[in-house]
Amino acid sequence: MYQEILYDVNDPIATVTLNRPDRLNAWTNRMGVEVKHAMAEAESDPKVVAIVLTGAGRGFCAGADMQNLKNISEGAGGGQKISALPADPGDPSLEGFRQTYTYLMSIRKPVIAAINGPCAGMAFPIALACDVRFASDRAVFTTAFSRRGLIAEWGISWLLPRLVGTAHALDLLFTGRKFDAAEAERIGIVNRVLPHHELSKHVEEYIREMAANCSPTSLQIMKRQVYQALEETLAEAHAKAVRLMTESFGREDFAEGVTSYLEKRSPKFPRI
Amino acid sequence: MYQEILYDVNDPIATVTLNRPDRLNAWTNRMGVEVKHAMAEAESDPKVVAIVLTGAGRGFCAGADMQNLKNISEGAGGGQKISALPADPGDPSLEGFRQTYTYLMSIRKPVIAAINGPCAGMAFPIALACDVRFASDRAVFTTAFSRRGLIAEWGISWLLPRLVGTAHALDLLFTGRKFDAAEAERIGIVNRVLPHHELSKHVEEYIREMAANCSPTSLQIMKRQVYQALEETLAEAHAKAVRLMTESFGREDFAEGVTSYLEKRSPKFPRI
Amino acid sequence: MYQEILYDVNDPIATVTLNRPDRLNAWTNRMGVEVKHAMAEAESDPKVVAIVLTGAGRGFCAGADMQNLKNISEGAGGGQKISALPADPGDPSLEGFRQTYTYLMSIRKPVIAAINGPCAGMAFPIALACDVRFASDRAVFTTAFSRRGLIAEWGISWLLPRLVGTAHALDLLFTGRKFDAAEAERIGIVNRVLPHHELSKHVEEYIREMAANCSPTSLQIMKRQVYQALEETLAEAHAKAVRLMTESFGREDFAEGVTSYLEKRSPKFPRI
Repeated sequence: MYQEILYDVNDPIATVTLNRPDRLNAWTNRMGVEVKHAMAEAESDPKVVAIVLTGAGRGFCAGADMQNLKNISEGAGGGQKISALPADPGDPSLEGFRQTYTYLMSIRKPVIAAINGPCAGMAFPIALACDVRFASDRAVFTTAFSRRGLIAEWGISWLLPRLVGTAHALDLLFTGRKFDAAEAERIGIVNRVLPHHELSKHVEEYIREMAANCSPTSLQIMKRQVYQALEETLAEAHAKAVRLMTESFGREDFAEGVTSYLEKRSPKFPRI
Repeated sequence: MYQEILYDVNDPIATVTLNRPDRLNAWTNRMGVEVKHAMAEAESDPKVVAIVLTGAGRGFCAGADMQNLKNISEGAGGGQKISALPADPGDPSLEGFRQTYTYLMSIRKPVIAAINGPCAGMAFPIALACDVRFASDRAVFTTAFSRRGLIAEWGISWLLPRLVGTAHALDLLFTGRKFDAAEAERIGIVNRVLPHHELSKHVEEYIREMAANCSPTSLQIMKRQVYQALEETLAEAHAKAVRLMTESFGREDFAEGVTSYLEKRSPKFPRI
Repeated sequence: MYQEILYDVNDPIATVTLNRPDRLNAWTNRMGVEVKHAMAEAESDPKVVAIVLTGAGRGFCAGADMQNLKNISEGAGGGQKISALPADPGDPSLEGFRQTYTYLMSIRKPVIAAINGPCAGMAFPIALACDVRFASDRAVFTTAFSRRGLIAEWGISWLLPRLVGTAHALDLLFTGRKFDAAEAERIGIVNRVLPHHELSKHVEEYIREMAANCSPTSLQIMKRQVYQALEETLAEAHAKAVRLMTESFGREDFAEGVTSYLEKRSPKFPRI
């Protein structure tokens, strides 16, 4: 079914792999539609606790396909339109986050970026819309927009300063310079850098550990809370948390969470 | 008067010590009421320039008392209600911050967390509501909520992403993993880690230095400015700062601040 | 024309140098007017791609001139009034940022602080209103306000917590302690520390590299996007980005950005 991505479910992990390795997985309209469809699949599959976004071959994603950009710059339009969007994933209560690529923030399950190589241009805001980011020590990043006469695309003007402050954000946007995984980790763009050959194993273990110990319902609620709180006052976020906490007291997950802890055994939380 | 905390004033420092060391100072309703009462005492005591929150024995606070959680999960309610709240501390102009535990942000004096050991579950958002955090190298942290089928409690969904960004916040909330003081310092959750046996001495010297050099009125105003500014536009925060600066020009503290500087002597600022 | 600053344009760099070296470049009303005038000059000069703010001699800026503060504390007013403001620089669409000194955030070109030595008191929020900050390893910082009986001035209550979080912000505001360039870099106040004698060369190369590779129009738009996004929802920032991206597709800079990339040559972007 998919032509430009791979989709694999290995309970409890769904993996979405950008798969144009001969083009460093450069992004196309079709790829965007396929990723969105796969995210919807993973979101509704109870076997899936968390979703990995990664790239095939030696790159994560080189950004927009240059042929696409060339066509646009020559007035030929942005290439193949994929009009039939087969899926509309994401939590409706995160409506303001369900934009072109930031919809990843509204997916009801953790989305983990496994950045295995170069991450450039529009791939950068897409990676920023993932919840947690792990990077190979071979990963290299660039916003690139200023070097193509473009602007801060796809929400990066909002996402990046909230992650690293305006000074680092403006440095990276102004210059479009390349920077390595160590710098990305130091300033807070990625959660952690791993030796290249340990990246996929680390991400797998990270999710398996999460699935073994954490309530999928808790994960879903907390993801929504964190993103909504970015646009709320403390009083609003707090009132919501009190209501959600009270609701959680009546849920099977809470009884199991407390009992398993007191019985010093692993919890068995319902999948969703 | 207090059963579950210790309260001590040693000019210029008030120390509030969570004191159920045999339970790693697990939080109870009574403890919450007592802490709030003590914070009100310290806030209104002119001998006190700043307030320390710490734990007795080898822990800071293990989170909600498990017996309490067990009662709730069995439908028996949250234990002893302490209905008579003897104090309503905090700055009314910080109304939106005066929630269950975030009221610490509205206390009119600096509140310094001295995190001497494990800090888990609901103790984590309570520590985040303190203004400055110092940690022992024996401190260990966990949000824990996802492992009990709970949600992002007590304002942590709002506080944590503003401190460390969404990626670190979601990692720590999703996994509920334990992390050490060095990681807490590296990503910005604590201001500084100290060798265990130097923690209390460091915090004492930090406050004594502050009391010897800084205007208590300035401390009060700046704390309010910083928290209010989180929910203001730059134009609003700036207009307020210009007004507050102009007011400060007519205050005894400003004359003393300038004169003592020019005379190369320590200032004598009025206590409040 | 200028008495308290130096202004120099060396294509593509404008340099504004605070020039009262015998007073560690202590800030006066006249200096403020002259800096604003020079920023307006640089903003409208097409030779200028980016603007450097730095200090003459061994300091960046010691803060408000103490004689000025002394006069105010003695009721004599803030010294010489410079009523004729010769320029009103900055992007009107950043109206909320065009305050007394934060107008630097509205200047339509990158403003780079080269912090060559002590940066104290009101010089701190002025430095924070620059887009990117490089510091000499001899730089030393202090907010100082609490030690003069003052408050969090000139927007620092809004700027500093968004850069380093409330815990570091309150520590630095409460104590007014001195801290060095390494700490400033570690917590995110400066982008990078350089050996003292390499600072000016580094800043020059940074801007020359930017001018050689990046579209001045892109720089202007992205700066505006980043600051506006601080006060927008993600949906607002995203909608704006889509509109700006579409506009950029029709611009000469985009065609040149794509073509020069495909031809593996340096781009030639129009100056503005």
